[in-house]
Amino acid sequence: MKVSILQDTFFPGAWEDNFKKISDFYKKACREKVDLAVIPTDALCGFEPKSLLEYTDSSDKIARLQKKLVREVNRSTALVFDTPFALDGSFMPSLCVAWDSCIQFSVSQIPECDTGLQGNMFEFKDTKILLSYLSGSFVLQASMDMVSLTEADMAIFLDARPFMVESERERSRFICQVAGMFDRMMYVAQSGGQAGRVLTGASAYYRRGECCVQFPYFKAHTATFDTEAAPKPQRKTPAADKEIALIHDALVCGIRDYFKHNGIKKAVIGLSGGIDSAVVLPLAVEALGRQNVSGLMMPSQFSTDHSVKDAAKEAENLQIYYEIIPIEPLYKAFMKQLAPVFKGTPFGLAEENLQARIRGNLLMAAANKTDAMLLNTSNKSEAACGYGTMYGDLCGGISVIGDLYKSQVYALARYINRKKEIIPQNCIDKAPSAELRPGQKDSDSLPPYDLIEKVLRLHLEEKKDEKEIVKEGVDKEITQKVLGLFYRNAYKRRQTPPVIRLSHTVLAEDTEIPAAYKRK
Amino acid sequence: MKVSILQDTFFPGAWEDNFKKISDFYKKACREKVDLAVIPTDALCGFEPKSLLEYTDSSDKIARLQKKLVREVNRSTALVFDTPFALDGSFMPSLCVAWDSCIQFSVSQIPECDTGLQGNMFEFKDTKILLSYLSGSFVLQASMDMVSLTEADMAIFLDARPFMVESERERSRFICQVAGMFDRMMYVAQSGGQAGRVLTGASAYYRRGECCVQFPYFKAHTATFDTEAAPKPQRKTPAADKEIALIHDALVCGIRDYFKHNGIKKAVIGLSGGIDSAVVLPLAVEALGRQNVSGLMMPSQFSTDHSVKDAAKEAENLQIYYEIIPIEPLYKAFMKQLAPVFKGTPFGLAEENLQARIRGNLLMAAANKTDAMLLNTSNKSEAACGYGTMYGDLCGGISVIGDLYKSQVYALARYINRKKEIIPQNCIDKAPSAELRPGQKDSDSLPPYDLIEKVLRLHLEEKKDEKEIVKEGVDKEITQKVLGLFYRNAYKRRQTPPVIRLSHTVLAEDTEIPAAYKRK
Repeated sequence: MKVSILQDTFFPGAWEDNFKKISDFYKKACREKVDLAVIPTDALCGFEPKSLLEYTDSSDKIARLQKKLVREVNRSTALVFDTPFALDGSFMPSLCVAWDSCIQFSVSQIPECDTGLQGNMFEFKDTKILLSYLSGSFVLQASMDMVSLTEADMAIFLDARPFMVESERERSRFICQVAGMFDRMMYVAQSGGQAGRVLTGASAYYRRGECCVQFPYFKAHTATFDTEAAPKPQRKTPAADKEIALIHDALVCGIRDYFKHNGIKKAVIGLSGGIDSAVVLPLAVEALGRQNVSGLMMPSQFSTDHSVKDAAKEAENLQIYYEIIPIEPLYKAFMKQLAPVFKGTPFGLAEENLQARIRGNLLMAAANKTDAMLLNTSNKSEAACGYGTMYGDLCGGISVIGDLYKSQVYALARYINRKKEIIPQNCIDKAPSAELRPGQKDSDSLPPYDLIEKVLRLHLEEKKDEKEIVKEGVDKEITQKVLGLFYRNAYKRRQTPPVIRLSHTVLAEDTEIPAAYKRK
Repeated sequence: MKVSILQDTFFPGAWEDNFKKISDFYKKACREKVDLAVIPTDALCGFEPKSLLEYTDSSDKIARLQKKLVREVNRSTALVFDTPFALDGSFMPSLCVAWDSCIQFSVSQIPECDTGLQGNMFEFKDTKILLSYLSGSFVLQASMDMVSLTEADMAIFLDARPFMVESERERSRFICQVAGMFDRMMYVAQSGGQAGRVLTGASAYYRRGECCVQFPYFKAHTATFDTEAAPKPQRKTPAADKEIALIHDALVCGIRDYFKHNGIKKAVIGLSGGIDSAVVLPLAVEALGRQNVSGLMMPSQFSTDHSVKDAAKEAENLQIYYEIIPIEPLYKAFMKQLAPVFKGTPFGLAEENLQARIRGNLLMAAANKTDAMLLNTSNKSEAACGYGTMYGDLCGGISVIGDLYKSQVYALARYINRKKEIIPQNCIDKAPSAELRPGQKDSDSLPPYDLIEKVLRLHLEEKKDEKEIVKEGVDKEITQKVLGLFYRNAYKRRQTPPVIRLSHTVLAEDTEIPAAYKRK
């Protein structure tokens, strides 16, 4: 059987674009005399169309394009797709197979099925094919008691799934496991950045449990092959353990596609000389091109010499345009205007925040003036602890590393420097500092970053409470401090930019803290 | 039968406080020889404890306090309450009645029941009592085919429900309707502000369909009365049609409780002389006291004379502290520092936003320095159209009128001025302007506010699409403009403060727009 697979991004709202992608793909498949053309979950309607489907124009449009698509389908090349509608027109994801201008087979998703597999069987050109979704929260359970399982000549699984570091290994292992249960197995998934999520891609074809065709992560790709004479089995699904490489690629893809979809070409980044902005810069350059990225260094009287030096060195390594704008004159001007309110009070939080907000203001001004988007450079560890200034360093159109703990940011820095020194070694070696008062270090206000991460992972991923975290060996005082900061600062995270998702625990989205809740 | 009702706010996380409130109330009821002590939905666990229940310490604590509470309950005064746990310990809201140190009766919520009523019956002191929740989305349907309905001597409905203008009439009508079906009927609900929502309160007791006891909206209140000899029937549930008075009271309560719960006493407001800040100011003064509210006027070279004059007049009417800080020196200082980036480009959006962000920076500095919270003064109409500057006028700890259309803001202004002129008439009469460039008016960039509201209401409340809105008589071009602005500017709303909820359509929370979606 000759098969074509389309792996790509499909946006909700861009119905005509989605239709054209599918239609072009199908026509090419016909020219190549393909038997089965397969596209991923949510292709026509776009990934997670959410409330758009409540509107008649959207649902009508999708339904109309779907009919048009089905009419185009001929007798010899079947199209496998899914649709947000059940056969009765209600909203219920359904898998469909069309040939000869008709939907010949359709099966609705069974919302709860604890095998992690749902599906049913159709027959085309004497081949019995099991068609299924890979369920959202797949359960690693080999015992699938579907009759169809043993009868199927081939299984096709459609998917669209945001990349998550901690479950990627599980996902790829599960695919292999399922592949081992079928003579031939095909996995077809959406790929690419969508509003802060990066869809995994990594579609694949397996014969007798061996991977024959492996699509790339994140990138659009198509392939046509014969299921019987597919390329010799390659080595097993690669790269799933190269975690940091995947994180890197996901972030680059996330930035690129977010900008592309928003119709913005250029990025502005505030370069402090610290590790966070030092890591975001090369990611942005890879995603958007060096000519589209510019940096602003905004030293104050509290900035150390190496801050501007390190930042400038990296900007020169990457050959990007940058400006140095000292904030002291602005800070002084503010202090003068604020005199009636500040009235000779001592230097404190207000003055620290003021500096950060002057920088935010300069960055947004530069972004507005040059039609650019400001990239936010906060990391997950500091955001969790509220270590940042609202409307200051928490500004930005998208947060690039907001779902990475500080240790992951360092790992990413080393990965970026794997071939040559792009990020100055000093950015990696020096102690983190916000440089908002003389000699300030992050460690003055925060517990060590490795312990922050440990507490947060236990609390967010494993849902362990204070007592249980202490039982895991973390000091009680530190546990209380981190959890206290985490809960008290939810209000700051509420107003931060969307974050490129890399985990199940994106702070502002997945940690549903009652806003009124105060931890003692 | 002698009855005590407790209407109050209960916060998730404040388990001990909640316990004490209930326990004190119950002990007082015992001293008064009450037969039934009734508390609202979610009393012990707090309103919507969300993810807190996933943690052992929280669920253990609630379970422990619940056991303690039940042990306190004696034979002659039964306690009616609800709990997040079903009898098997799983999370499933359950209604309970305890006496003699035991839970004597318990019924779990049936998740879907299209009568809008759920309940079952217990007997205490020879009285058959139907116990029920008022379902979240109640359905106005008189046909309740529960056997118990006709047998019950009394019905008790527990509730906790955020106030929503557009469904308040429906809620109060429904209560009356249900009251008419029982000989005696009691409605017991939580009241007060919680994280941007204001729980309705308005608990009540009805005899033969006539309201005998009516609790206030929003405020904490307790009452003890005899169900047989309750005060003479008063006139029917009042005030439900005094919509603007309820909006006013809800906002005052929302501000007061948000500050109280966050442990903040003082508020800062930017006073532009426009209608929005002019309306927020007296609400804040009523909620927090005039000594806790201060205003900042920040005129620029584009500010009209009346701006500062009107704002100062209102500040003096309300006797609050205010300062005037001109932003021109700061604007000039920024323009000087930004010269390498701006390079002689013409005045545009970047310069407009810069002014708004200088103001945001000054307001946040004043708030930080005085331990105050900045109140955001954006309204729903402009927020929907993205008419505001991120990190500028969109700053703040809470948005007071972010769920009010411009017409409602004017109505509120007139209501505030009902006895005497607090808001200068000129603020109400003059054309709205952001005053960020010479002679600017909102109407230069936006369609008329009444049409913006019409399009938004049809789109958000009635889920009508463009074609359907035009069919309702709105000009096509205006419809397209408003919907275009609405979808294009979702990214701004993503980073705005929490809004005091007054409707089902809070912009950033209830309108789930795929962030990548662009309307053509």
